[in-house]
Amino acid sequence: MASAFIVNPGSTSRKYALYRDGVCIVVLACETTGNGFCMNVIRNGIKTDEAEMTAHEFSRSVQYVVTYLVNHKDIESIDAIQSVGIRVVAPGTYFTKHRLIDDAYVQKLTEIEDVAPLHVPGLIGEIVSVGKVLPDVEIHGISDSAFHSTVPAHISTISIPKADALKYDIRRFGYHGVSLASISRRLEEQFGKIPERTIVCHIGGGVSIAALKDGQSISTSMGYSPVSGSIMGSRGGDITAGVVAALTVFKRLRGKELYDYLYKESGFKGVAGVSDLRLVLERRASGDPDAILAMDMFIHEVHSWIGAHATLLGGVDAIVLTATAAERSSVVRNLLLSGLELFGIALDAEKNESLVGSTGCIHVDGSAVQIAVMKTDEMGEMDLLLKN
Amino acid sequence: MASAFIVNPGSTSRKYALYRDGVCIVVLACETTGNGFCMNVIRNGIKTDEAEMTAHEFSRSVQYVVTYLVNHKDIESIDAIQSVGIRVVAPGTYFTKHRLIDDAYVQKLTEIEDVAPLHVPGLIGEIVSVGKVLPDVEIHGISDSAFHSTVPAHISTISIPKADALKYDIRRFGYHGVSLASISRRLEEQFGKIPERTIVCHIGGGVSIAALKDGQSISTSMGYSPVSGSIMGSRGGDITAGVVAALTVFKRLRGKELYDYLYKESGFKGVAGVSDLRLVLERRASGDPDAILAMDMFIHEVHSWIGAHATLLGGVDAIVLTATAAERSSVVRNLLLSGLELFGIALDAEKNESLVGSTGCIHVDGSAVQIAVMKTDEMGEMDLLLKN
Repeated sequence: MASAFIVNPGSTSRKYALYRDGVCIVVLACETTGNGFCMNVIRNGIKTDEAEMTAHEFSRSVQYVVTYLVNHKDIESIDAIQSVGIRVVAPGTYFTKHRLIDDAYVQKLTEIEDVAPLHVPGLIGEIVSVGKVLPDVEIHGISDSAFHSTVPAHISTISIPKADALKYDIRRFGYHGVSLASISRRLEEQFGKIPERTIVCHIGGGVSIAALKDGQSISTSMGYSPVSGSIMGSRGGDITAGVVAALTVFKRLRGKELYDYLYKESGFKGVAGVSDLRLVLERRASGDPDAILAMDMFIHEVHSWIGAHATLLGGVDAIVLTATAAERSSVVRNLLLSGLELFGIALDAEKNESLVGSTGCIHVDGSAVQIAVMKTDEMGEMDLLLKN
Repeated sequence: MASAFIVNPGSTSRKYALYRDGVCIVVLACETTGNGFCMNVIRNGIKTDEAEMTAHEFSRSVQYVVTYLVNHKDIESIDAIQSVGIRVVAPGTYFTKHRLIDDAYVQKLTEIEDVAPLHVPGLIGEIVSVGKVLPDVEIHGISDSAFHSTVPAHISTISIPKADALKYDIRRFGYHGVSLASISRRLEEQFGKIPERTIVCHIGGGVSIAALKDGQSISTSMGYSPVSGSIMGSRGGDITAGVVAALTVFKRLRGKELYDYLYKESGFKGVAGVSDLRLVLERRASGDPDAILAMDMFIHEVHSWIGAHATLLGGVDAIVLTATAAERSSVVRNLLLSGLELFGIALDAEKNESLVGSTGCIHVDGSAVQIAVMKTDEMGEMDLLLKN
């Protein structure tokens, strides 16, 4: 039977999945732990196995994972893998389309390595690894920006000189597009019909707030790079030009060092000392002033984006909360969606409390604005996109 | 009689004014023209004189202006000038207070010259000039950020590492504070009482959108530097970290060159080729696609800020439009305030049309949200602040 191998390099982990006939057989998530590396094996949403990995194995995780699949009879042999899809987070008009990855594609990636040093080198590494392990299989680059192709020019254009915007291909590409596509695909199922005006809050290690008109993206808080929009785990989303310019003066930050600073040292980690939202919440609950400040910043920034997007949409019919932190934490959901009565947004405390790790609606009965917690399904979406 | 000499270094001009007993005697605006320099003399809001200036005279405009005041008997001698106030646009907690300018003050300015190379060196130049021309008079630095001291920490904090934010004194200081103070002071007079929730749109060469709660600032689109918030004449307000980082890679922009790029080459100038909003409107009317795009970007960004601020305030009671472009152009006002019915904002087309260069309310009768066009009065505010 023909299977699809899905590769999803995240900001904090490398996830893989095997799909057969549109069904997820197994997810394999390789991640760094406090003192090493491990792979979690998830079947039907439940963790069934955990394996320690050496640094060497982690650096060759594609080989490790495929070997696991064969050893556990998820596939008879590597020949059963018919296609590979890999999520591509990369700034560039070329990367706003889903494409078959060939030498030209890799070359294009190489050209932008220096302006996306925390995503692109790892991505190239994964592509090369897959090519070695599965030499005869086509690899498809699934664009994380394609979903935002419907954003109008006056929202995607950045106000630098036009000639440079063209020459260097600088505009708001937006990200989390695969996640958003997986949500958009299920809007009708969730709400009975596709709402005219939806705001999707993707609250995970990365955070973005998107405005969907009739299910299509017309704006997102993510811009040229994934370090834009709201404050995130270790990314300071809303850092504007004057601050970056000042950092190049005060700290003489340049190149990779500057990117590391913006991507790995800022955000919750910069303000509150920890990047994991769960730890920020814990510290906040125990009265830590930095954690209280960071959470207040987060709420304010998400509210500002919701307000801006509601203005653009002329109102709100539905709010979708998705990605790990939003799916798992009723506290986060309550904090982020309180105080938005202006838009008719009213959370039902009881429904919200009772919803942990599952999906469903959490607005008060009769509310004009429907609020749904939905599971993002990047890997399933990638499997679907592979077929089209 | 004791007079106050007001110095207002703008982004495109140097303005001076003489006040006596709280009354503006004369305004002297020195500016570059297409082929040189000139000084406009304004009395009671009407231009009464215009003088060509040489480059040498322009470079010593304080001397030139004070000599003019004596020659025209606005003052008997320079001894009549009892105090001097100068508007200070500078990032730094020290500069968020109005202060007497002494050597320590100038030293503090020198320390931040490199992160505000387009404002601070000129400011120091003006301070030195005034010191030479009026050696016995106290010079007061009127902070353009002081008005934003009421912004709460979770809105003024920027999500870079806390230690750096403290060490390098990086947070959202906000600007246009003197203009906003002049508006806030007259809110009661304008609306009968101070509205609980006011949004002030300062639309001039610089643009900022501020949220006032009971007349006090709780947020503004201007951040650490004056190149933040909405798109402006030649400043690209909303340029985020990833774009600046990319510019340091692609164009190898550094130091003053980077600041020049962000302050002088971006914004309307970058997108539409001209920085003057009047020219953008003209080109837009004649169908120029870049001007149409730039104006759509402007409207979208101002709307986004109005939406974000309305969310923060929990609604809007009053909108104030101020500064040159908003005071003079009914077209600009109409474009910026249309499509905001969500917040009860409804412009009366006729009232708006008939209001050119004057002040008044332009909302439809019975509207829940009052909309007023008000003249900003930075110089008058500085004269008032000098006395306190």
